Amino acid sequence: MHALVYHGVGQKSWDEVPDPRLQDDFDAIVGIEAATICGTDLHILMGDVPEVTPGRVLGHEAVGVVEAVGSAVRSVQPGDRVVVSCINGCGICRFCRQGRYGQCLGGGGWVLGHLIDGVQAEYARIPFADTSLYRLPSSMSAEAAVLLADILPTSYEVGVLAGRVRPGDTVAVVGAGPIGLAAVMTARLFSPAHIIVIDPVVSRLDAAKRFGADVVVANGPTQPEPADLVMDLTGGLGADVVIEAVGKPETFELCTRLVRPLGHVANIGVHGAPATLHLETLWTKDVTITTGLVDTSSTAELLGLVANRQIEPNPLVTHTFALSEVMTAYDVFSRAGETGALKVVMTKEHVAS
Amino acid sequence: MHALVYHGVGQKSWDEVPDPRLQDDFDAIVGIEAATICGTDLHILMGDVPEVTPGRVLGHEAVGVVEAVGSAVRSVQPGDRVVVSCINGCGICRFCRQGRYGQCLGGGGWVLGHLIDGVQAEYARIPFADTSLYRLPSSMSAEAAVLLADILPTSYEVGVLAGRVRPGDTVAVVGAGPIGLAAVMTARLFSPAHIIVIDPVVSRLDAAKRFGADVVVANGPTQPEPADLVMDLTGGLGADVVIEAVGKPETFELCTRLVRPLGHVANIGVHGAPATLHLETLWTKDVTITTGLVDTSSTAELLGLVANRQIEPNPLVTHTFALSEVMTAYDVFSRAGETGALKVVMTKEHVAS
Amino acid sequence: MHALVYHGVGQKSWDEVPDPRLQDDFDAIVGIEAATICGTDLHILMGDVPEVTPGRVLGHEAVGVVEAVGSAVRSVQPGDRVVVSCINGCGICRFCRQGRYGQCLGGGGWVLGHLIDGVQAEYARIPFADTSLYRLPSSMSAEAAVLLADILPTSYEVGVLAGRVRPGDTVAVVGAGPIGLAAVMTARLFSPAHIIVIDPVVSRLDAAKRFGADVVVANGPTQPEPADLVMDLTGGLGADVVIEAVGKPETFELCTRLVRPLGHVANIGVHGAPATLHLETLWTKDVTITTGLVDTSSTAELLGLVANRQIEPNPLVTHTFALSEVMTAYDVFSRAGETGALKVVMTKEHVAS
Amino acid sequence: MHALVYHGVGQKSWDEVPDPRLQDDFDAIVGIEAATICGTDLHILMGDVPEVTPGRVLGHEAVGVVEAVGSAVRSVQPGDRVVVSCINGCGICRFCRQGRYGQCLGGGGWVLGHLIDGVQAEYARIPFADTSLYRLPSSMSAEAAVLLADILPTSYEVGVLAGRVRPGDTVAVVGAGPIGLAAVMTARLFSPAHIIVIDPVVSRLDAAKRFGADVVVANGPTQPEPADLVMDLTGGLGADVVIEAVGKPETFELCTRLVRPLGHVANIGVHGAPATLHLETLWTKDVTITTGLVDTSSTAELLGLVANRQIEPNPLVTHTFALSEVMTAYDVFSRAGETGALKVVMTKEHVAS
Repeated sequence: MHALVYHGVGQKSWDEVPDPRLQDDFDAIVGIEAATICGTDLHILMGDVPEVTPGRVLGHEAVGVVEAVGSAVRSVQPGDRVVVSCINGCGICRFCRQGRYGQCLGGGGWVLGHLIDGVQAEYARIPFADTSLYRLPSSMSAEAAVLLADILPTSYEVGVLAGRVRPGDTVAVVGAGPIGLAAVMTARLFSPAHIIVIDPVVSRLDAAKRFGADVVVANGPTQPEPADLVMDLTGGLGADVVIEAVGKPETFELCTRLVRPLGHVANIGVHGAPATLHLETLWTKDVTITTGLVDTSSTAELLGLVANRQIEPNPLVTHTFALSEVMTAYDVFSRAGETGALKVVMTKEHVAS
Repeated sequence: MHALVYHGVGQKSWDEVPDPRLQDDFDAIVGIEAATICGTDLHILMGDVPEVTPGRVLGHEAVGVVEAVGSAVRSVQPGDRVVVSCINGCGICRFCRQGRYGQCLGGGGWVLGHLIDGVQAEYARIPFADTSLYRLPSSMSAEAAVLLADILPTSYEVGVLAGRVRPGDTVAVVGAGPIGLAAVMTARLFSPAHIIVIDPVVSRLDAAKRFGADVVVANGPTQPEPADLVMDLTGGLGADVVIEAVGKPETFELCTRLVRPLGHVANIGVHGAPATLHLETLWTKDVTITTGLVDTSSTAELLGLVANRQIEPNPLVTHTFALSEVMTAYDVFSRAGETGALKVVMTKEHVAS
Repeated sequence: MHALVYHGVGQKSWDEVPDPRLQDDFDAIVGIEAATICGTDLHILMGDVPEVTPGRVLGHEAVGVVEAVGSAVRSVQPGDRVVVSCINGCGICRFCRQGRYGQCLGGGGWVLGHLIDGVQAEYARIPFADTSLYRLPSSMSAEAAVLLADILPTSYEVGVLAGRVRPGDTVAVVGAGPIGLAAVMTARLFSPAHIIVIDPVVSRLDAAKRFGADVVVANGPTQPEPADLVMDLTGGLGADVVIEAVGKPETFELCTRLVRPLGHVANIGVHGAPATLHLETLWTKDVTITTGLVDTSSTAELLGLVANRQIEPNPLVTHTFALSEVMTAYDVFSRAGETGALKVVMTKEHVAS
Repeated sequence: MHALVYHGVGQKSWDEVPDPRLQDDFDAIVGIEAATICGTDLHILMGDVPEVTPGRVLGHEAVGVVEAVGSAVRSVQPGDRVVVSCINGCGICRFCRQGRYGQCLGGGGWVLGHLIDGVQAEYARIPFADTSLYRLPSSMSAEAAVLLADILPTSYEVGVLAGRVRPGDTVAVVGAGPIGLAAVMTARLFSPAHIIVIDPVVSRLDAAKRFGADVVVANGPTQPEPADLVMDLTGGLGADVVIEAVGKPETFELCTRLVRPLGHVANIGVHGAPATLHLETLWTKDVTITTGLVDTSSTAELLGLVANRQIEPNPLVTHTFALSEVMTAYDVFSRAGETGALKVVMTKEHVAS
């Protein structure tokens, strides 16, 4: 088969590689119908995730059809159309028993396209298939369904649920990239009164409005301090919930300035460097700060909400390619500033241009 | 009357000052039976709390007898023996309606010995008396009761409840000063399996054992990294709940190294400087970090637990003085390293030596 | 002034009575702009609420303008336009400190039009004004605002919040009277996937659809068992949340047949007789059953949601009268089956026909 | 091997039967070291559980040594000493993913000694071994460990956790049989101020005192209404948490009279008949009533607490027999009124008298 193979920092190619085979009773083999690229894949290519070694097939978000299952797999069978979650859980460790698959102690967690070969390929081996694969209705498009693999549960679990968004809240989302926009979309399930999105890029702020933000704020060196505006909008208190969707020290620190006393800061951003925590002002403020890797424990719930059209994620997909065009897709995705790319999806069906 | 008056950085004296008078319908005047000194009072004297201006009577923890009440006070009357909480809440703002008096938007919060005259005095005016004063049984000693004003609710609310201690947990408390020891004592209400206390001072670690810690760890430049020990004791995972009871960047940072995935760091410490938050490792760890000022919303519950002898706080009081000896009491308390002082209590009854 | 006075079972009239006066420092006098009639008022007239004695002015839901306040009232002042909550809390008892005003131990709770004179009058005395009155924006219509006095917080707190409605849930509401429809409306704040409404009256089921139900079920002696349909719709499990909005033994018992394992039954209905609880089947089912009187702790939140047009309650008001037409209004409201009345509102402005 | 076989209503015998064999990849075979008898076993013998058919080996609580495991079993291996939980979960259904194994939709739940052969035998087949078996330290006695199979998690999960016992609470436990006494023991983990136990049998009340109750109340036809006493002890409010540990309509109804406004009634009792729910008084009382089958999701936590001697369950075991004496053990257990039996344990090691 063909797959997108990592060959060291900055190096990747669409190679012919051996087909994956069942290695464990809990494995499934999935024929990939659609896959997408995550910001984390770009981090891997920059060398920021050293556990990923040359030769690794990348990708952890896909939709496909089950080809084969190990003897212990019970929830799917060959022929089932499924979403492949970015997280696998052993199902029996202390954390998996609580549905916290992201922290699996039994060999799961984030492994696809990281510690084992991933899903930017024609076929993929999925370990612990019962906690990773969710059957899809035939009516759901691959473009919508592939967003259930990572971005929707991540924004919902790590942002909206951890931040405890409630009806009437003012929610501030710092960062209007794909994950920030998904947080806007999923926050709306709890009927906040206001969603304020802060980002330096005007086109992203426009997108934020389309996804449901009612206030957008450009930040940057020449811009006014966003906290002043948020304070104005909230009677001087700050936002009830602040969601960090960038992953830089300065954006995290901004979040801690935006939050009201007794409010929540939910960090989704992938950080490569420490931030400064201003405890000299925060210690009296009764704030709650959370971090988290997605568990994909909400996938079934989100799948129902997408099927029921309560979440319409398709606008997150800005570009579609054939699987074999994955090198082009990476290029478009990595130049999002120019291309306006949010999520790019590679599908088996797409006819390469 | 006499009162301990702040006269600027490093300056205080036991002065004759006018008696306090009712100024508002919600006020009470309390004749002080016992008061204590808080670490925060030492911070004030070092100039760290600039809102406190010369001429201010210090102190925010007391037991006394109600002398007079304003026309709107309903829960106490002259003659009632009461604990004076360190926090007053207006009772009707958004946060007070949720019992979050520490964040009162209506003129309450921490005001005693801070924004208005405090309780290290023969008499004190207590605003919003209904949310600050709790009637005491005559059988409860002033020494035990005065600990209900601040240290017990602070350790319980900001440490134990915010950290969500549960039966069977491993709780790590960083700092074995009075507030850390109170956290040990109140954490035990939830039957943790292990309480690990970390502090550089051996005599404090001995105290921690007496208060209920089962593991104590000396930390400091020449000591092994405490996180290694905590990891050993917890199968490599870390503590379920970590309570910061010091208020320094390095102790807060230690807390974030001690906590297990999905665990809680509850900050009680009073911080004067920012800390470094290692988001580059914490972002995937599903940790919850909380800060907070005490609300004294648990005072009635704790009062019952002390009355019922489920909490025995008296060992926290190491020294007793007459009210008029408050200058000596400050000296003993400020040299805790030498004197072994935990809480020092000044009482009306005590005959000056 | 004039007021609607209860004169014993089945007896009431629009009488001239003395104007109310401030009796306590915490009182306010409100000039009534609009009032409405509650099903509970009909119960009073049937003699079901024996604490209500002849001579009592009825009514506990109003909008008005503050005329005068006692010396201890802090949150409103003469001239403020306010909603008058059906619940008053002393603010300082154990339960009020938790925002549970409905269970006030200090003389509050439901008292208006019950233990003291109510608001179906030109003026009313409101005790504990600070926990009962909420300032209204001038742009909000009296018809919308008067629904904030009781029906919206009751359906939201006692139904939706107690029942823990979550995104993607199937919610069953038994009873499509005003409170059931308000539960449909406020449940939508949490984005359930399905709202099933069950009622014997077809016109009410039509109304339920307009308020947001997606499935409606007629129940009654000649109808199929509604539980069968709900089981069909939920894969045999039952509804996640079931809200009782009638107050009869048979409707409550139906609710316990509709709920799934691990689900919630939230009772809003006013019951006059015991129900049978089938513990022989429920004991293994992990269900949670809640009852409750409204606290009006959500009034500020709901007021914001109405102001922000996230809740549009006006369609609940089917008939409008002048205050002086209250006898006619009662007649229309009590014959809801014929008149199609949901909420009837009497306003000062309305010109009597 | 030998096993205790049910032969129809009132009929059982210690028969020679074929050894169990692995039937599924998720099975384990356990050699039984100790087993106990549950009140439910007596119900089965009375014909109250018709799913149990003649020929069934009874018993769902045991300790033993793993003899063999299916290919998909990962958490135990032959030679491991384990507690056998009364509940098995498939691990992958909607409810098992939340740790709610008692409601398993995938063939688990309570099956041992119910739908498949049980553990009052020399060997037993345990399905879904990974969610049912917990490794035991060699230092823990079989008598203590066997109580982890059912009675300790049931009292803790269905009583104490569902009832939300908190420090300082007044907890009323209705029923001082083994499960009520276990509820007393596990409630103490949360430091309630008072535990009131109500039972008609004086010897059981004496036992309740030994297990930690501070108030015991005899109820019965000639006794004063227990609710009066509980009201006296709680200032007229009622108990914070009431735990039903009998399973009769009248004891459940008593619980609903004992609970305070905003309190919890947690039903553990196994009911064979409906109860009357006095909604005409309860509807305004903000009570929460819960039912539940144990999930055994707390077994690891409780195992740690027993190992750490924070729970000392041995006094629950009043009689010990050899496995081959199980017929005598049933006799003693079924005449608890005479014999004073709480839990009777049959062990492999015990030399038959």
